[in-house]
Amino acid sequence: MSDSVAVLGGSMTKFGQRDAWICELLAEAGSACLADTGVSPDAVDHLYVSNMASGEFEGQTGVMNALAHDLGLVPAYSQRVDQTSASGGAGIYAAWQSIKSGASDMTLLVGGEKMTHRSTAESTDVIASITHPAEYKHGVTLPSFAGLTARLYLEQFDAPRESLAEVAVKNHENGVRNENAQFRTEITVEEALDSPIVADPLRLYDFCPVTDGSAALLFCPVAVAEEYADDYVVLSGVGGATDTHVVHERDDPTTMNAVVDSSDRAFEMAGLEPDDIDVAELHDMFTILEFLQMEAVGFAEQGRAWEQAMDGRTRLDGDLPINPSGGLKSKGHPLGASGVAQGYEIYEQLVGEAGDRQVSADAGLACNVGGFGNCVTTAIMEARQ
Amino acid sequence: MSDSVAVLGGSMTKFGQRDAWICELLAEAGSACLADTGVSPDAVDHLYVSNMASGEFEGQTGVMNALAHDLGLVPAYSQRVDQTSASGGAGIYAAWQSIKSGASDMTLLVGGEKMTHRSTAESTDVIASITHPAEYKHGVTLPSFAGLTARLYLEQFDAPRESLAEVAVKNHENGVRNENAQFRTEITVEEALDSPIVADPLRLYDFCPVTDGSAALLFCPVAVAEEYADDYVVLSGVGGATDTHVVHERDDPTTMNAVVDSSDRAFEMAGLEPDDIDVAELHDMFTILEFLQMEAVGFAEQGRAWEQAMDGRTRLDGDLPINPSGGLKSKGHPLGASGVAQGYEIYEQLVGEAGDRQVSADAGLACNVGGFGNCVTTAIMEARQ
Repeated sequence: MSDSVAVLGGSMTKFGQRDAWICELLAEAGSACLADTGVSPDAVDHLYVSNMASGEFEGQTGVMNALAHDLGLVPAYSQRVDQTSASGGAGIYAAWQSIKSGASDMTLLVGGEKMTHRSTAESTDVIASITHPAEYKHGVTLPSFAGLTARLYLEQFDAPRESLAEVAVKNHENGVRNENAQFRTEITVEEALDSPIVADPLRLYDFCPVTDGSAALLFCPVAVAEEYADDYVVLSGVGGATDTHVVHERDDPTTMNAVVDSSDRAFEMAGLEPDDIDVAELHDMFTILEFLQMEAVGFAEQGRAWEQAMDGRTRLDGDLPINPSGGLKSKGHPLGASGVAQGYEIYEQLVGEAGDRQVSADAGLACNVGGFGNCVTTAIMEARQ
Repeated sequence: MSDSVAVLGGSMTKFGQRDAWICELLAEAGSACLADTGVSPDAVDHLYVSNMASGEFEGQTGVMNALAHDLGLVPAYSQRVDQTSASGGAGIYAAWQSIKSGASDMTLLVGGEKMTHRSTAESTDVIASITHPAEYKHGVTLPSFAGLTARLYLEQFDAPRESLAEVAVKNHENGVRNENAQFRTEITVEEALDSPIVADPLRLYDFCPVTDGSAALLFCPVAVAEEYADDYVVLSGVGGATDTHVVHERDDPTTMNAVVDSSDRAFEMAGLEPDDIDVAELHDMFTILEFLQMEAVGFAEQGRAWEQAMDGRTRLDGDLPINPSGGLKSKGHPLGASGVAQGYEIYEQLVGEAGDRQVSADAGLACNVGGFGNCVTTAIMEARQ
């Protein structure tokens, strides 16, 4: 395992409405990650910044070079990684490649986005354009896809509407235990079911918020990690995939093909199966997506994930805790940061630093989704043996 | 060399003012590259799109997923690579990593940008923000840096103003022989010296144009390339680096440190030295940059590159032809495409398909510069032995 890729450490900023611009958010997470791991800036030879739209949101490009400057990493290589809302997961994959190819001995990945200063209409313009013009220019945006798919799922699999509310309730409950989460208030099933309709049958509490924030992870060969720390984890599997760029070309909108393909690839690389996973962070931009990903990853049969939500299996004290961090729903969703923050939560769970939300886990999975499953990256991490 | 990375083929669109949106340009280059190499879309498992600012220029994000759809590559992994105006070079590096890490057996890289539909003021807003706000918000944009640096260079090294004009004259001369170049007209030294002042001492003919266009390259392990073709080349060295994000922190603005560092890394990987290079594509966004890169790569002593331009060494019939494609100056500079098109020119020269501008070459180098040397990627390719 000495040529395997290690995650040496991580960090994240407080997620929420932040009075800081993108470069400050990136530097906050990046510098905390270096400080926590005791790795000198001089040792970092590659820097990846997961960010979807600093140019569109803030009129600032070249943020990876600004960060290399701010953290004292020059002359390290720098690059921005964009895979829309899956940019963070794509950053984990890029970091894995940089280490595995022998190009890098120490790669810092920082994901971040600054969004809350823009109006909902402005943000929607940017986010809607992730999908095909044949869709968004006619008003079919991501929330409306979620509504249509949720309706199909509930009807096709005879699932109660309450099961979606249970996802929101669970993830809010977990977020209360995460000091960096945007929302730290519990909600009830009744409140979720009574919240305003956004895209029928989905209501306000079925959607993640608009968020500012940043997260970081540090990667190196396992042999190098041994020199720095006892509490690293191994990035044993990672894979990415695309699905059709227009949703109506999919045979079955309740099957997220890119989740199936990317997690198949990650499992194959890790030599593991879904049953081996003890904890997962899934991309719950909409509550329905947590069910679809549970099924596409292989945690549940198609059409049965809702039962696991109803019987508590995915809660912190269940068999397979999902989104212990609070998920996008409660922790928040700063686009480029989310996939990195998912990886950070898995890292923390595996090294036993997850505090009040700690679960027992030897292997964890993070699934980061772009668009409506248009592009997905899945990562599997394992505790050091 | 069986575990080396091969460039199996490439293509580019006509550069210039194009009546096509970014996704059409990307698909045009990408499909031509697959058709030319005879590689089936099914065989492509990774897609990288080098693009700096489709969101800012056209309000369209997710272009890599659109391209995966348009070329029939789904479920291949897709990702957008941004390193500002060096995004194409960064894409070559990402492709190298994907193959070398074992993640991919066939990676398609497509770079592109659509710019000419925006006003100069709009384009300048986007491009200026590559640099640090401490600079561009006070009006110090890339052309003004070029003017200041050119003045310093001419004075410090006692170089004649005509030497810069010779760069433009040479690159226009080469562009005449490239059917895909934006400008295909020869100019004279006198015309260059009489053109309107942009940033004294630099004049209009010292600057590359604003351009639409796309270019593509296909990468695979050498062992796989053997199955497809006899005329592939080997990507034997690649390296990237950053320099200070504010120019005034550099000890000597006439030394492009990130070019020095990135080419050192590429030479070390390839086991070659500057003398081994037979042809080069350098990032002549401004004429002065051709001199600075010649010196930073090691083709000339500091302050002496201008002599080589004056004595014709860098012309098509010289010892070391530079920018045989016409360079950014004449071929055009669609930001995300430029580095890929540089690589395509080196590929064509090494496989003997460069037509009227063919030179004799066993090894070639491409240097792609972001900002004012803020981030640079250098690639070295060698003809198959």
